[in-house]
Amino acid sequence: MKVNLNTKILDKNEQAAIQNRAFLAHHKLDCLNLISSPGSGKTTILCRTVADLKGKLRLGVIEGDIKTDYDARRIRAAGAAAIQIETEGACHLSAQQVSWAINQLPVSEIDMIFIENVGNLVCPSAFDLGESGRVVVLSVPEGDDKPAKYPGTFAQSDVILINKMDLIGHLNFNLERVLADIHALNPNADVFQLSATTGEGMQQWYNWLLKRVAK
Amino acid sequence: MKVNLNTKILDKNEQAAIQNRAFLAHHKLDCLNLISSPGSGKTTILCRTVADLKGKLRLGVIEGDIKTDYDARRIRAAGAAAIQIETEGACHLSAQQVSWAINQLPVSEIDMIFIENVGNLVCPSAFDLGESGRVVVLSVPEGDDKPAKYPGTFAQSDVILINKMDLIGHLNFNLERVLADIHALNPNADVFQLSATTGEGMQQWYNWLLKRVAK
Repeated sequence: MKVNLNTKILDKNEQAAIQNRAFLAHHKLDCLNLISSPGSGKTTILCRTVADLKGKLRLGVIEGDIKTDYDARRIRAAGAAAIQIETEGACHLSAQQVSWAINQLPVSEIDMIFIENVGNLVCPSAFDLGESGRVVVLSVPEGDDKPAKYPGTFAQSDVILINKMDLIGHLNFNLERVLADIHALNPNADVFQLSATTGEGMQQWYNWLLKRVAK
Repeated sequence: MKVNLNTKILDKNEQAAIQNRAFLAHHKLDCLNLISSPGSGKTTILCRTVADLKGKLRLGVIEGDIKTDYDARRIRAAGAAAIQIETEGACHLSAQQVSWAINQLPVSEIDMIFIENVGNLVCPSAFDLGESGRVVVLSVPEGDDKPAKYPGTFAQSDVILINKMDLIGHLNFNLERVLADIHALNPNADVFQLSATTGEGMQQWYNWLLKRVAK
């Protein structure tokens, strides 16, 4: 007998994802799932976004990490509500964990929820959390071969942020190759080049976010 | 009824790992399993190691990626035999895949096998491949919070390479914090600071490798 473990686990997750999606729709909340390698700058992007959009967009953040609440503390210091999930070894967030965290957020005071997934360019892309959009972050130091080597994650994104553009002069990074590979995998994704450290290029990302909630 | 899926999968992998370990011992082959985030520089480290140790250490490489044979091509261009495993979505190499790949390598002409695992700082650490040692690579642009946030992977390593040290002047990276966090998790691991791009610090790594095969 062969048991398809993959399908079973996804089914359980899917049920919770459907419930999350209904809850978010009821509260008119947009929700973005951020996926990337460890250290590509997801938290730095979110901290700068929270600070720069203060008064324009009310954000809540769910932070996923294997260990530590460092990221939730950073988000709170930047000025937004943040709930930390420590997965204790699990390589991605589940919709059940997100369901618990959404209920801790002050949803009536929020326009948009960011879910920062566990740093992992593979596993998170296979698990629907009930989000309304997916953001994939690729940082320049990771190299220009990443879209081709991790096609599933890049193919399933609504927007791709190429972060740490301030370092491109110190690295051998073929931007044209990256843009071509992304376009081949996912012609509909918006792609923004930016640096959350220097602030360059962040405005296009903010415009993209503000357009979503204006709809 | 609760079925412990994790245990079952590990058992199957463990059987193949035990067989790999016996095969490697029989052929007097050292074997290192390289684990890191995507883009931390594993392949660049291996390419430079192959080229610099030519005539001193005969290396064979097993490359793991979700897609593409880019890395095996880079290793062959550097001068070593390389076998590419494309996992087609799986987030780590299995001992069964490594068993297949070992049998493709010219083992009688090799002193040491490197297994470059799928770029992922979480999942590969849970799967024994039959290796005799583990190498974890952390690159400076990933940030100084990674050992604390991914403790399992750092705790289970024999040597930790802090790569891309040539970029440290452009980044906010607290090296003392990283060294202290690694020491707290894994006091027995050797830690080398290096840059595979510039070559700085590579000699300590080569000495560590040469000492292993001299034993």
